[in-house]
Amino acid sequence: MLNFNFYNPTRIVFGSDTIKQLDQLVPAQARVLILFGGESARKNGTLDEVRQALGNRDVREFGGIEPNPSYETLMRAVEEVRTEKVDFLLAVGGGSVIDGTKFVAAAIDYPNDPWEILQSFGQHIEKAMPFGSVLTLPATGSEMNKASVITRKATQEKLPFMSEKVFPEFSILDPTKTYTLPPRQVANGVVDAYVHIMEQYLTYPADGMVQDRFAEGLLQTLIEIGPRVLAEPHDYELRANLMWAATLALNGLIGAGVPQDWSTHMIGHELTAAFDIDHARTLAVVLPSNLQLRREAKQGKLLQYAERVWGITEGSDAEKIDAAIVRTRQFFESLDIPTRLSDYKVTAGDIDGIISQLQQHGMTALGERQDVNLTLSRQILEASL
Amino acid sequence: MLNFNFYNPTRIVFGSDTIKQLDQLVPAQARVLILFGGESARKNGTLDEVRQALGNRDVREFGGIEPNPSYETLMRAVEEVRTEKVDFLLAVGGGSVIDGTKFVAAAIDYPNDPWEILQSFGQHIEKAMPFGSVLTLPATGSEMNKASVITRKATQEKLPFMSEKVFPEFSILDPTKTYTLPPRQVANGVVDAYVHIMEQYLTYPADGMVQDRFAEGLLQTLIEIGPRVLAEPHDYELRANLMWAATLALNGLIGAGVPQDWSTHMIGHELTAAFDIDHARTLAVVLPSNLQLRREAKQGKLLQYAERVWGITEGSDAEKIDAAIVRTRQFFESLDIPTRLSDYKVTAGDIDGIISQLQQHGMTALGERQDVNLTLSRQILEASL
Repeated sequence: MLNFNFYNPTRIVFGSDTIKQLDQLVPAQARVLILFGGESARKNGTLDEVRQALGNRDVREFGGIEPNPSYETLMRAVEEVRTEKVDFLLAVGGGSVIDGTKFVAAAIDYPNDPWEILQSFGQHIEKAMPFGSVLTLPATGSEMNKASVITRKATQEKLPFMSEKVFPEFSILDPTKTYTLPPRQVANGVVDAYVHIMEQYLTYPADGMVQDRFAEGLLQTLIEIGPRVLAEPHDYELRANLMWAATLALNGLIGAGVPQDWSTHMIGHELTAAFDIDHARTLAVVLPSNLQLRREAKQGKLLQYAERVWGITEGSDAEKIDAAIVRTRQFFESLDIPTRLSDYKVTAGDIDGIISQLQQHGMTALGERQDVNLTLSRQILEASL
Repeated sequence: MLNFNFYNPTRIVFGSDTIKQLDQLVPAQARVLILFGGESARKNGTLDEVRQALGNRDVREFGGIEPNPSYETLMRAVEEVRTEKVDFLLAVGGGSVIDGTKFVAAAIDYPNDPWEILQSFGQHIEKAMPFGSVLTLPATGSEMNKASVITRKATQEKLPFMSEKVFPEFSILDPTKTYTLPPRQVANGVVDAYVHIMEQYLTYPADGMVQDRFAEGLLQTLIEIGPRVLAEPHDYELRANLMWAATLALNGLIGAGVPQDWSTHMIGHELTAAFDIDHARTLAVVLPSNLQLRREAKQGKLLQYAERVWGITEGSDAEKIDAAIVRTRQFFESLDIPTRLSDYKVTAGDIDGIISQLQQHGMTALGERQDVNLTLSRQILEASL
């Protein structure tokens, strides 16, 4: 096991009918800004429920945070916070809204140009405005972690930052709030969480016995509920388990003390940037061929994954690994998520462009051993066609 | 899944050579009181290492905290904190020292008689002195939770309290610090952690899919490493996995959103009180017969436990449950922990006394369904002879 530092002070308030607890969670005298995305939060009544729970507090709204939250939009929110003397932020939405709120919280009192937060990956943040979240879309884990990804439209840059100052103070997870999500978003959420786990689990054996068991348990849970959560959108238990699994997939716990990969994400990000493919779908495309191309380096963990997650015990090692990768792809497809670049109209002729983006962004030594160079990334993309 | 509120702000600093990080973790100007148990912390050099890491800070020591930490001893520590104007506490030891430090932290500014902290189970604690811990004995989970158990010698009372104010700010978990522990303490630690998990897992099915998988993963890990951790005391990976598993066994995570039992603990406490049997050993005695006597009410989870934790797939349901209980008992015995009351010289004639203690302490409706009454407790004890 590697040495690690685990810290996660976010309070999770989980269950049906929990939004009313906002009254205890938000300071009584707070001047609150609610941040949200599109108008669905208003239409489905969640915004009203939130405002009602906040009672007589001074509450403002800031809508229109995009799926890939933009620096430009968020700087308008920063301005509003300053003008209106807001002192508590409340994100109502999914990962993008929460990521955006983290940026606003950090930018308010940032002594330099706030874009520097992204350029320095958050390492100079010394304080942030307190904020909480009401999660409506299980997927990214942002509701219980210290990370955020922000896009600057003007320059087409998409950069992450991390800071212990931007853990949400609390996140309310009410599974009933996910009942009205479009199936596509739910399927994306399942795949996003699945690949978050794989990036932290499927590397090389490092004696993180508990971490492995937890990761396997989360994968098994997602496999068990994945197609059912789509077929039965109002099944409380299925939605509850998806919501809690997606949070635990990326709250720091299963990655503490073990190597991590993240090359599927980095290659996937370029596909989103170039072709506007949903983030989760890029992961579903890249992961199977990534595992296939690196099957030797990942052999130990692939065999463990085959046996413990998929129950594959027959055949040679090579056959077990083949079967595990096939089952992974089939799982994504069972959620109506296509897993080939061609399904998204990306062709062999597009690969040069993606490789040159990876190069521009310094993504030339990815993975748990930093051996995913541009040649290997090209092979992975070719195998994904 | 039940609604839940999960909050755990303790920072875990895990790994070899981490004690030196105390310099960053403890405020630079702090006046520190180190609390510890017996003299082993001094003899094996841990105390020196801690003092060295604390550098030029003003540091005092308070030793002699007992295995069942006593109110009387701890009130002397409270006095010392006041006299010496200490403003940071550092527990160096196992669960008893950390439990004791939690009490001291809460008692310092408690407006009423500090014993009232125990009488009200901690619910009136409004502030506590900040403290951290250096864990030397994996077992209780106190290093990452908000609970503590204190004994008042004068009146023979042993009471728990809980408060979010007494989470350690940080806990340093260095597996190498466990190398010199007596085998008996290590074995007790494995069983203590195992039964903590069982109390939160082996109840009735409640659709906590992730919680179940996590609990099963921890149990499997303990089963896998249990005898080896005794046979190979200097194996870093084994000690590291034991340490992290024991912490996660009782940090609130696997119990969030699911029913909990704790009847084995309550009956076990009386055995410790009456016959001075090590806490973990009382659990090893009570758990197998407790499961046996309540096998009908616990059938769903017992079958799941048999299959997922022990890999038992053959036979009738009754045979699978029998086999799982036998394997549990054998596991404890494989750690040189006897599992019968007679092994501890407790006889049928002693049971009346234990039952009357349970009655005196209000332990008349235990378990996840509050159906473990005195009659059932008696049957469990009789089956444990």
